[in-house]
Amino acid sequence: MIIRDMTRAECTQLLEKLRFGRIACVEDGQPYIVPFGFAFDGHAIYSFATVGTRIRWMRANPLVCVEVEDIVSPQNWRTVIVFGRYMELPETPEFAAERATAHRLLSGHKLWWEPGFVRTVSHEIERPLDPGYFRVAIDRMTGHCAG
Amino acid sequence: MIIRDMTRAECTQLLEKLRFGRIACVEDGQPYIVPFGFAFDGHAIYSFATVGTRIRWMRANPLVCVEVEDIVSPQNWRTVIVFGRYMELPETPEFAAERATAHRLLSGHKLWWEPGFVRTVSHEIERPLDPGYFRVAIDRMTGHCAG
Repeated sequence: MIIRDMTRAECTQLLEKLRFGRIACVEDGQPYIVPFGFAFDGHAIYSFATVGTRIRWMRANPLVCVEVEDIVSPQNWRTVIVFGRYMELPETPEFAAERATAHRLLSGHKLWWEPGFVRTVSHEIERPLDPGYFRVAIDRMTGHCAG
Repeated sequence: MIIRDMTRAECTQLLEKLRFGRIACVEDGQPYIVPFGFAFDGHAIYSFATVGTRIRWMRANPLVCVEVEDIVSPQNWRTVIVFGRYMELPETPEFAAERATAHRLLSGHKLWWEPGFVRTVSHEIERPLDPGYFRVAIDRMTGHCAG
């Protein structure tokens, strides 16, 4: 089996195809990985989340990593890793257009994983439903594939 | 759909069942996620890797996060997130017993993802085959499930 680097175009195609991946953020040198649903418009990654540990950490340090996988078989798979920056899209006039873009991209697909829109009971406390959109601006990405 | 916390026993069972996940490490506040194959002996996570960015980062900062998923359907899934510490298992007498444990656990399964034992051509340079075992000691873990 040979594993090779993917081109930028191949990385972009995989991000456009997939709707589910993982995002990592950091606090005090400790990384934190969370599965998440997303949409990619060719330039940035859009998603949404309720306020929680992940959002607090990304507000304090916007450096994030996004990872996606497309595994067909042990000999035939692709993975892309994005290094980027978190940016919230608040409900203010200046972000209205980008929020609309995020809403359009995300509403076209069932982001079934994301607990943002479902009732979440954690430590016996029901979490408030207050999802917010965010964008990940891509600084750099790499991809590897086999097969 | 209700998402609930998993118990410690449920988290442990999932780590014992799965052989493939993702590990994140950090350099200068920038997280980095890599898919990896692993084995869990009930206490620690064992894996191996060739020297690369990931190993250099974990040597400098041993704080890591491991994430695993068991997705049956959109309504039936489990995920566990481990916060832990990376420790290399070098080829010295004091680590001989733990290296044997790692070898026994890992050799029983095809860790097909890991490029550690395959020829990797990256940026047209063939990467040296020099895999080393490591352990992730678990500081804390959380799990969520639906269905």
